[in-house]
Amino acid sequence: MKSVFRLNRTVFSACLKDAFYRRVQSTKQHIEDSSLKCVKHKATLNNEEERRATLRTPSGMRDYGHPQTAVREKVLQLIADCFKRHGAQAIETPVCELKQILTGTYGDDSKQIYDLTDQGEMLSLRYDLTVPFARHLAQYKIGSMKRYQIGKVYRRDNIIMTRGRYREFYQCDFDIAGVCDPLIPDAECLRVIVEILNSLDMKNFEIKVNNRKIIEALFSICEVPNEKFKTICSSIDKLEKLSWEEVKREMCEDKGLNESIADRLGQYVKLNGSLQMVEELLSSDLSKNAKMREGLEEVKLLFNYCRAMGINNVIKFDMSLARGLDYYTGVIFEAILLDEHDVGSVAGGGRYDDLVALLSNNKHIVPCVGVSIGVERIFTLMESKEGAMNFYPAKCFVASMGKGLAEERFKLLTELWDAGIAAEHSLRTHPKPLNQYQYCEEKGIPFLIGIGGDELSKGVVKIRNIKAREEIDVKREFFVDELKKLLTSLTFICSLSTAFKSYNDLVDVQIGSVKRMVKNVADYSAGREKNDLGFLTFNLDADFTNVFDWNTKQLFLYLSAQYKTKNNVNNEVVLWDHIIRRGEESRISFKNRHTKYYFWDDGNGLKGNDNITLTLSMNIIPNAGLLPITTCRTIHTFSFPNEYMSKNA
Amino acid sequence: MKSVFRLNRTVFSACLKDAFYRRVQSTKQHIEDSSLKCVKHKATLNNEEERRATLRTPSGMRDYGHPQTAVREKVLQLIADCFKRHGAQAIETPVCELKQILTGTYGDDSKQIYDLTDQGEMLSLRYDLTVPFARHLAQYKIGSMKRYQIGKVYRRDNIIMTRGRYREFYQCDFDIAGVCDPLIPDAECLRVIVEILNSLDMKNFEIKVNNRKIIEALFSICEVPNEKFKTICSSIDKLEKLSWEEVKREMCEDKGLNESIADRLGQYVKLNGSLQMVEELLSSDLSKNAKMREGLEEVKLLFNYCRAMGINNVIKFDMSLARGLDYYTGVIFEAILLDEHDVGSVAGGGRYDDLVALLSNNKHIVPCVGVSIGVERIFTLMESKEGAMNFYPAKCFVASMGKGLAEERFKLLTELWDAGIAAEHSLRTHPKPLNQYQYCEEKGIPFLIGIGGDELSKGVVKIRNIKAREEIDVKREFFVDELKKLLTSLTFICSLSTAFKSYNDLVDVQIGSVKRMVKNVADYSAGREKNDLGFLTFNLDADFTNVFDWNTKQLFLYLSAQYKTKNNVNNEVVLWDHIIRRGEESRISFKNRHTKYYFWDDGNGLKGNDNITLTLSMNIIPNAGLLPITTCRTIHTFSFPNEYMSKNA
Repeated sequence: MKSVFRLNRTVFSACLKDAFYRRVQSTKQHIEDSSLKCVKHKATLNNEEERRATLRTPSGMRDYGHPQTAVREKVLQLIADCFKRHGAQAIETPVCELKQILTGTYGDDSKQIYDLTDQGEMLSLRYDLTVPFARHLAQYKIGSMKRYQIGKVYRRDNIIMTRGRYREFYQCDFDIAGVCDPLIPDAECLRVIVEILNSLDMKNFEIKVNNRKIIEALFSICEVPNEKFKTICSSIDKLEKLSWEEVKREMCEDKGLNESIADRLGQYVKLNGSLQMVEELLSSDLSKNAKMREGLEEVKLLFNYCRAMGINNVIKFDMSLARGLDYYTGVIFEAILLDEHDVGSVAGGGRYDDLVALLSNNKHIVPCVGVSIGVERIFTLMESKEGAMNFYPAKCFVASMGKGLAEERFKLLTELWDAGIAAEHSLRTHPKPLNQYQYCEEKGIPFLIGIGGDELSKGVVKIRNIKAREEIDVKREFFVDELKKLLTSLTFICSLSTAFKSYNDLVDVQIGSVKRMVKNVADYSAGREKNDLGFLTFNLDADFTNVFDWNTKQLFLYLSAQYKTKNNVNNEVVLWDHIIRRGEESRISFKNRHTKYYFWDDGNGLKGNDNITLTLSMNIIPNAGLLPITTCRTIHTFSFPNEYMSKNA
Repeated sequence: MKSVFRLNRTVFSACLKDAFYRRVQSTKQHIEDSSLKCVKHKATLNNEEERRATLRTPSGMRDYGHPQTAVREKVLQLIADCFKRHGAQAIETPVCELKQILTGTYGDDSKQIYDLTDQGEMLSLRYDLTVPFARHLAQYKIGSMKRYQIGKVYRRDNIIMTRGRYREFYQCDFDIAGVCDPLIPDAECLRVIVEILNSLDMKNFEIKVNNRKIIEALFSICEVPNEKFKTICSSIDKLEKLSWEEVKREMCEDKGLNESIADRLGQYVKLNGSLQMVEELLSSDLSKNAKMREGLEEVKLLFNYCRAMGINNVIKFDMSLARGLDYYTGVIFEAILLDEHDVGSVAGGGRYDDLVALLSNNKHIVPCVGVSIGVERIFTLMESKEGAMNFYPAKCFVASMGKGLAEERFKLLTELWDAGIAAEHSLRTHPKPLNQYQYCEEKGIPFLIGIGGDELSKGVVKIRNIKAREEIDVKREFFVDELKKLLTSLTFICSLSTAFKSYNDLVDVQIGSVKRMVKNVADYSAGREKNDLGFLTFNLDADFTNVFDWNTKQLFLYLSAQYKTKNNVNNEVVLWDHIIRRGEESRISFKNRHTKYYFWDDGNGLKGNDNITLTLSMNIIPNAGLLPITTCRTIHTFSFPNEYMSKNA
């Protein structure tokens, strides 16, 4: 960046002078206008400090630059794909809600709601996506719906930047509303969490499950006073981070709970485990309490359904899970990453059967269950994983070398844009060559397309591989096609995810050819002329382990031969292909393998051809985003013999 | 929907009774809690009317349901693709800004800004994305940047619902910041507008171009008083909708402009045309005014650059274009659809060289130019175009027939989700078959997977084609593969764009076979056994005109033969393919055409085979979203002769 900035500064003072000159020339009116604006603006800015203070985002909110937004786009796409796979429909609600709708639904957390000034009606910024969804159901009298919503919510919380908690943050919500039989949609919510965490390659996680009915029964059994319900809940919720002794001290000393009650609670809330634990509790004395039994039976059924959905291994019953919000009425759950202790929960939710009724004043009753993905924490984790990726969108830079070439440059750019190739250029009419090269290096733009007086007269353009520092001249009329080949595939281009990961550096490939023969035989398809048919066996050693990142679903590999003949400059024949799925062996080692497909030449171009190149290409099929096709850099060149194989060979 | 609702209501009252029963059982505390909530909530809701009034979105803001959000997703994706193609990086800024940053930058429009109550700092909702971008540049001292941002902005405007204007609406902004030579980035902004409108299939549009310098010079030449600058600007802006007489009357009668000044203005603001008009003005007396000359020279250069970018045919110089916002300093532009007069402008923008300086109190000076896509108006247009599409996400519904099958259903669902297939099911443990069928019909879900006691004991599942009302039994272990085939392609599945357009209804295809022969010859690839090689010529008539909607880039067609042999139940061979690009002839009529590819059987399964089916499939390559592969419904079945063709035939 430095050199570009240095350049800019020089140009800059020239520009400032120019601006000054123009200003002197300009009409008096414009000067007056500008001054007026400055005065108006200064009115609110009295001193240097206040002025500097203005140039910031609101407390607890921040800007996101490009690499971050690109990671976010990928993650949100994966999450939305999962929601859609479960048949959920997207809705969007306004960022504001009427104030009355939000008050009285969040309990103590209501004080964190941002209010707008009264400008005709009392509005607040949404605190989550659940209450707006419930309002939507009540307003349009919708009786059942599977919906998802991805959007930002606002909480005037204490800012804990280090834990990825901000006052403006994304939530990704999936909810199932409608009269249902017990636990059927609840189990699907857990399944959604597992699918999402798997697709994001979060390997080691568990989902804690509890039931509000169990907590209520427990507090009633232990005789926790009603008025302490919420505050004791929140203490118990801390058992994940603090020891029982610390939690007990908080409950008794800070919150005035009777020590014997605390000890009774302590017996139970430390309990956690699998289905077996639930069954033990069901046959214990605890289950004499009807509410407790009902809650435990629900958790048991949930475990059974989770087993049928193949996710019971990550479900854990945990009596210390309480969750903060008021509106839960049944099963509650929270997913945590076991390897990332300071991240906190990455997904959570539960059943809220009374919320729609509450909002509609019992006019409309719809039981609901839902999950919210704590995507900000996931972003933070993914950003560190994705640090090495270059998300810069432009795949080439069109440079003009010399004066009077701006319009020529635009013509080249226009062809690239028309072909869907992301292309950039300088903001200057006559940019310096070195600055343009440096810009590409700094931004990680792989190719530079150069045009100068020389190229123009010869009818060519230069294509420069920035990393390799090599350049070739190609005919003006073919440069887009040539560049497409260099970008190895159309699918890089105008791709939904413009990630440009250098997969070549990740793969170690060795290719060799063993037998090489040519026959001359009639092609059975349409014509009856004899054409060359090549026979080849090959060795292949390759390790694709590093290609499998969190977003790789499978690899499609193909071996192709490229060669020149008298008739055609470029011939390419695919000889063999292979698929490696995620989880399968990602190393390949073949000796003396036959090709899978015919190696026909469209003529007699194989016999004696001494420059046949074998290339292994891979087509990476991601979980999200489009297919990048890339070519492994290791290639193998061989010759075919000068004689045809005899008929009887 | 009706029948489901009827069902739900019955279940509903049962559920209510159950809820009541549970409530009676529940602890006293819970009852108290609930009542407390209701009381709290009622405090703000005094009567029935007020209660009903609560269940709504804020004035001028609205919810969007699923078909709308799906159309929006598609349109926004296309726009983002274009921005990325031009090398722009995404940024995100908070929905709130400090109030001081917004005041003093929008002129009279400032009164439309939503303010938050003072909760530690004075915040406002963003009014556009331009000022937050300028603040971002000033805050981080960024000297040059090409950025895009897609987000919602807030204006407490008069609500004109019919014109698609709301108080919360999306903007899609593309801006180029940095010291530049004149008009280079400005021309790229116009190019971006053209690319986006073309990709959305908006065929007939023009981009009006003017220059703030020209307007200022004109007002100074005509001696419009300084204090009337803005108000007269806004009158002139109305020339698109009103006659000159009406505008003049407004200026003179309502706004007190001297009639002779109005007439002088009238001479000029009616001027509009091509580059020729600009050149005429440049050689007229008007150009004696230095500012006017400067403005016109800029427009002339812009026309030249637009010609190099192939978009000059849609650019129109229009001296009546003024644009409302205060911050413009140079070229301004606005795109309008010529066939949709009441839609207003669908894109607009211009140069704002002083805004960053103004916000940073001249500490940081960055000239900028940008365009904002009026995407809400485009949504409204696209929604009417896309009305016929079924955006329902689920591609199949897993139904259980009979009791005790919930867990079996979950196992089937799990396999489908694992395979990336969007699958839904009932919320009930024992749903009624008829209700499940009806649900699929109502939602447009194409396939139902059914399992009952019978199927379970036979080890099969039923796949029902809902529209065709046909069902088949398939082996339990193969049902996912079978369904994938029925969905005709993996690409439907877990697709980024889950649009399910019934392309079959749009295409008229006739297939016939002419010559049909079989040879028995050695396959040259690996083995030396003789295999059947079919020869075929075919007729094909098809019209794909209706498939090319706004999102269709090209079609990849392929003709394949399906047949059964002793060795394999399913054989499929691709015989021919063809690409139709957008703009090419979309009708095909072939007679007696040879196949392009070999029709090898892997054995002797062609001779005498009396049930070979030819199918034409098409792979629709969209501008945005993934590839839907679909099969045309018209198929052709033929037999191969019982004898091999003689060697000498």
